[in-house]
Amino acid sequence: MKALVLEELNKGLNYKEIQPESKAGEVTVQLKAAALNHRDVWITKGLYPGIEFGTILGSDGAGLYNNKKYIINPSFDWGDNPRVQSGRYNILGLPRPGTFAESVSVPEENLVPMPEHLSWQQAAALPLAGLTAYRALFSRCELKAGENVLISGVGGGVALFAFQFAVAAGANVWVTSGSEEKIEKAISLGAKGGVNYKNEDWFKELMRRSGGVDVIIDSAAGDGFKQFIKVANPGGRIAFYGGTKGKINGLNPQLIFWKQLNIFGSTMGSPEEFKKMVSFVNEYKVIPVVDSTFELSNGNAALERMDAGKQFGKIVLNIS
Amino acid sequence: MKALVLEELNKGLNYKEIQPESKAGEVTVQLKAAALNHRDVWITKGLYPGIEFGTILGSDGAGLYNNKKYIINPSFDWGDNPRVQSGRYNILGLPRPGTFAESVSVPEENLVPMPEHLSWQQAAALPLAGLTAYRALFSRCELKAGENVLISGVGGGVALFAFQFAVAAGANVWVTSGSEEKIEKAISLGAKGGVNYKNEDWFKELMRRSGGVDVIIDSAAGDGFKQFIKVANPGGRIAFYGGTKGKINGLNPQLIFWKQLNIFGSTMGSPEEFKKMVSFVNEYKVIPVVDSTFELSNGNAALERMDAGKQFGKIVLNIS
Repeated sequence: MKALVLEELNKGLNYKEIQPESKAGEVTVQLKAAALNHRDVWITKGLYPGIEFGTILGSDGAGLYNNKKYIINPSFDWGDNPRVQSGRYNILGLPRPGTFAESVSVPEENLVPMPEHLSWQQAAALPLAGLTAYRALFSRCELKAGENVLISGVGGGVALFAFQFAVAAGANVWVTSGSEEKIEKAISLGAKGGVNYKNEDWFKELMRRSGGVDVIIDSAAGDGFKQFIKVANPGGRIAFYGGTKGKINGLNPQLIFWKQLNIFGSTMGSPEEFKKMVSFVNEYKVIPVVDSTFELSNGNAALERMDAGKQFGKIVLNIS
Repeated sequence: MKALVLEELNKGLNYKEIQPESKAGEVTVQLKAAALNHRDVWITKGLYPGIEFGTILGSDGAGLYNNKKYIINPSFDWGDNPRVQSGRYNILGLPRPGTFAESVSVPEENLVPMPEHLSWQQAAALPLAGLTAYRALFSRCELKAGENVLISGVGGGVALFAFQFAVAAGANVWVTSGSEEKIEKAISLGAKGGVNYKNEDWFKELMRRSGGVDVIIDSAAGDGFKQFIKVANPGGRIAFYGGTKGKINGLNPQLIFWKQLNIFGSTMGSPEEFKKMVSFVNEYKVIPVVDSTFELSNGNAALERMDAGKQFGKIVLNIS
């Protein structure tokens, strides 16, 4: 089969013919589409632990098994503690051979029936980002209809799912972005409004317009994080699943305890959360936003687009 | 009646005869003992919002009403949201006349029967600190038997109750303090061990000896807080109810989200939590640690002892 294989760092992936692996006790899914995550870009640059050359990358995929359509749960060995993944936890596409290929071998329990309203591309866009967004928003922050939500840095995969899920759940959703164009797109998808975080007083504008927010979903952390403490309503919940802006500084403890705030680190999710996430997408007919689609053979162009950070939604690979 | 009244700043309280207030719809409790909180010291220094001269201070008290013994819940107007107190929330002893007096007027719903195993002094030691400790440890951090717990700065009122409650609940409890004597006292009360936070590598020693902790209860915040992120086990919960060391800096976001950590600001607690706290004390026969007892007329000596920060346990006022 054809696959995109990591064979050296900083040179993208090699599109080549390789022998499919079929592990005992697992099933082989004929992939129809895959999607990229930042993780894939970081691996190609050597910025991820446990890199092994010869690995087929890719965590997200949808395809056929026994003539039925499935979405693949990319999480393995979460373990039995709902609070946190086990030490054995791993993600499809390193060390396991991933979804940037014509087929992939996974345990049958990792297959979840694909909602009928989704195309292959939309379904493939869902797994890792949808799972991370679902856990952060619902399991961790316990979002309820009617609450005010802030999604920071809308445009990235997880942020956009958190945004869409919050809108679907009946929340009043606000966004931040460094791009006016992304803010406009978010408004067209149901945001109450947005503020540009390049404006130093963005949090004052957000306070004025929203009256404060109950739930915040962030992936940047860094020095800007402290402003979330100000815009959070009493009893507010703040979850973050990334830290692209580095360490968190300058948190005012009195404001945090007097408002009884909750700050959650969150990543990925359990198999139960994956099933709940797909059910939610099915119930509310959420349509994942696909930024662009590339052929599997053109995977490096897709990686370059992700690395440039201009996307709005998921970058998908067609597999035919 | 005799009472300790705030009439000027930085001069302690005036012990004087004043007319008891008896509000409509409330009951009058004949106080037998009261206890101090840092709040009382801060008020005498003008370091608390809403200071009014002429106020009788004191949040903690136990006494007789209708010949029955009661502990007083010092919380008013929590509201109906278990996540956070309402904007009307207030605490006995400013603006309401408090417990540093021979009697106090409170709604009957604020009275909880006093556990029989407690003396007046021990019962009076319990309310505000016990409530804050209970909410942080059980409602917020959901402590379970067998978990490892760290109580930072053991010796203060809330820290010591959190410590005793965690020991009673069957946890393995570790402490930090700047005083070897306080660490030894905590060990004599059931701590597995303790480390001196004046040692720069205290967190490494704690990691080595405890293997990591599941729950952390802190009141200092400040630059040392970031070490809690390191000693917390995956799925760990960190609650703080104070910020004596100032702003929190240098939190590593990757460590927080990968370990799925939870950071909670917590203060006081709801009426339901107060009742649960007293039930817990009764069920496990917890004996509050009384550092020292002063007569009501000698209240300023008690305030000075609290301000000096040498106490281990609560500072109590006898009211006869």
